[in-house]
Amino acid sequence: MKLTDSFVTTLRDAPKDALTINHQLLVRAGFVRQLMAGVYTYLPLGLKVLNKISQIVREEMNEIGSTEVLMPILHPAINWKITGGWDKIDVLFKVKSRTKRDYALAQSNEETVTPLTSEFIHTYKDLPLSIYHINWKFRDELRSKSGILRGREFLMKDLYSFHIDQEDFDKYYQTAKKAYLRVFERLGLVAKVTEASGGGFSEKVSYEFEVLTSAGEANILYCNNCEYCVNIDDIKKYNEGDNCPLCKKAKLKASLASEVGNVFDLGQKYTKAFGLTAVNEKGTKVYPIMGCYGIGISRTMGVIVEKFHDDKGIIWPREVAPFDVHLVGLNGKGEDLYKKLKENHIDVLFDDRDLPAGQKFNDADLIGIPVRLVVSEKTCEKIEFKERTSDKTELLSFDEIIKKLK
Amino acid sequence: MKLTDSFVTTLRDAPKDALTINHQLLVRAGFVRQLMAGVYTYLPLGLKVLNKISQIVREEMNEIGSTEVLMPILHPAINWKITGGWDKIDVLFKVKSRTKRDYALAQSNEETVTPLTSEFIHTYKDLPLSIYHINWKFRDELRSKSGILRGREFLMKDLYSFHIDQEDFDKYYQTAKKAYLRVFERLGLVAKVTEASGGGFSEKVSYEFEVLTSAGEANILYCNNCEYCVNIDDIKKYNEGDNCPLCKKAKLKASLASEVGNVFDLGQKYTKAFGLTAVNEKGTKVYPIMGCYGIGISRTMGVIVEKFHDDKGIIWPREVAPFDVHLVGLNGKGEDLYKKLKENHIDVLFDDRDLPAGQKFNDADLIGIPVRLVVSEKTCEKIEFKERTSDKTELLSFDEIIKKLK
Repeated sequence: MKLTDSFVTTLRDAPKDALTINHQLLVRAGFVRQLMAGVYTYLPLGLKVLNKISQIVREEMNEIGSTEVLMPILHPAINWKITGGWDKIDVLFKVKSRTKRDYALAQSNEETVTPLTSEFIHTYKDLPLSIYHINWKFRDELRSKSGILRGREFLMKDLYSFHIDQEDFDKYYQTAKKAYLRVFERLGLVAKVTEASGGGFSEKVSYEFEVLTSAGEANILYCNNCEYCVNIDDIKKYNEGDNCPLCKKAKLKASLASEVGNVFDLGQKYTKAFGLTAVNEKGTKVYPIMGCYGIGISRTMGVIVEKFHDDKGIIWPREVAPFDVHLVGLNGKGEDLYKKLKENHIDVLFDDRDLPAGQKFNDADLIGIPVRLVVSEKTCEKIEFKERTSDKTELLSFDEIIKKLK
Repeated sequence: MKLTDSFVTTLRDAPKDALTINHQLLVRAGFVRQLMAGVYTYLPLGLKVLNKISQIVREEMNEIGSTEVLMPILHPAINWKITGGWDKIDVLFKVKSRTKRDYALAQSNEETVTPLTSEFIHTYKDLPLSIYHINWKFRDELRSKSGILRGREFLMKDLYSFHIDQEDFDKYYQTAKKAYLRVFERLGLVAKVTEASGGGFSEKVSYEFEVLTSAGEANILYCNNCEYCVNIDDIKKYNEGDNCPLCKKAKLKASLASEVGNVFDLGQKYTKAFGLTAVNEKGTKVYPIMGCYGIGISRTMGVIVEKFHDDKGIIWPREVAPFDVHLVGLNGKGEDLYKKLKENHIDVLFDDRDLPAGQKFNDADLIGIPVRLVVSEKTCEKIEFKERTSDKTELLSFDEIIKKLK
């Protein structure tokens, strides 16, 4: 993509209402624009990152045998009245049609997935069943000031699994947990598996995947020696400095964190509410055990920015970077190299603007693509190669560049 | 994909409230499920078709120099009050937050794209500018009984262009028209460019892309001799049997049709409303001319089914078929061929269910993938090849099959 053909505009200053790093940098670097608090437009660079994160999540969910569908955003009120969510969930957006019909906007999809799958589940032979979708969710948040970390409209992957008994659920939960850790590893993040309450979804303990960041809104206690981590907004049994209850070898430390994923053991709450039954091996009708597994795709994009930036701008991990290469052409150079890189299947952002070198280098640092290439009169037949994370530049031939990038 | 791993369930009978062919066949063949009138879940087969149509549209929009972004669904009421749409557009869904803030659900995106692009447009040098997105739209329809032809929630590509003057808009309109005709041609459809009124969007004449089908809701008059076509719901200047006003060589015929796309010359309505100006070559500030170009992605999927089916089921055009090949394995056969086809990058749906041959053949016809392959004890080393549109079967070797499919 050429910069002059696209909506990539960088800003010197962040908007005044941008209080968090992700909001400031994503706007300044031209990835998003805020339409109103908690609701964002994704510009071409932002859309590319969002699609890359979605694709990583999709691959890992397919890998654990889940099937992708697409469930609606506009739900009939009755589904939410059946489960009690209509009155209990304060973040549920409600819509009234001109003929006075009531609808809810998806804030999660238990209320649609359970009646949907009841058609496909009859006996234990149809279980376990795992289904997911990636779609926009809506929550009537009182405050939404953390950029794309807390959206009123946000992109989420939600997976639902159905099991004949608790044992089978527990097994699938372990499988899903591993898939989640693979997702976050591919995204360059360390996510701590954190005990929390089930919120409105479940009476049981749930697990959150928390990334330590000062922009986060969750208060956690974690152990540096083992994997123990607890959300103390929900579960107040420990304090900072207490001995770790798991390994007993270190003291718990407090941190702010952002929840990039979660897992709920929903038990039989929804299968009972919607009368979803399956005949087990003994011939008895039972209500299957259900699990819900979320990953906040847009929030994760924000968390990545909170974790990976310096005073010059964003530093995208390779797997989610909007482009492989940021090519800076000076003195009208670069067009040939741009074509040759594309022919070699390198995804390249070409800064073909007629601007001073310094400004173009600053923008490259702000946008944060992993590799910067420069061609100018000075570089002659060679190309200047620099990684975003390093100050070292090298003059290389085209073949050497391709070798480095592959 | 294996049928036993997926949510592909075929039904003998359509639901009673399915009044149109697309609704009946898409539910029976396992592509969609209705959540409520006008709102559908896309099952794996349906999601694949939706994504293929989106991708064709995306490629052709990129080809005419438009840039993809993603604009939100939840809009602040103020944007709709500025243009008057808040009070005038009866299909606009309105949402009130718990703190009594008013929002609208996207039914189109003029109200967000105009303030967005005002940041990018300053002078004639920034024009023309073309931007599009593919996202769900919401309309508070009084009736929604035509399957996915008229959704309360539906997927749409909407492109917006901005021009320094009318002449430049007229030129881009011709470019967009050609791109639209290429899209519909790739989808196997003949779309008639039809004169209509601008509706709430514009005072000017607009153009609709109409596909003749008895399931459509638009009344048109068309000429069989030339390309003349008019929507008589809006423009009542001619009657059936009148001489064609364009070629004057044939009589106008009446038909029902479905609008798969449209183009509006929005003039300066929105640029004036949002104060979007550009300095022209003479140094004068002007309000750019704006165009809006829609394609109903989910509706087009329904129209394809209305046009391409027989009494056995759907007949997908190759470019949008959910899979290249429907492989029927009999007597436990097929697993090896399934793997070999996948290795050869053939996208294959493998019916590995333990069911009678007749039932599997019926399902293959119902689902409507262009090519059916059968392996059984009878076919020995060979593979039975049959096209969905033909009754002829051939026994071919693997290499011959690959040659046919490429």
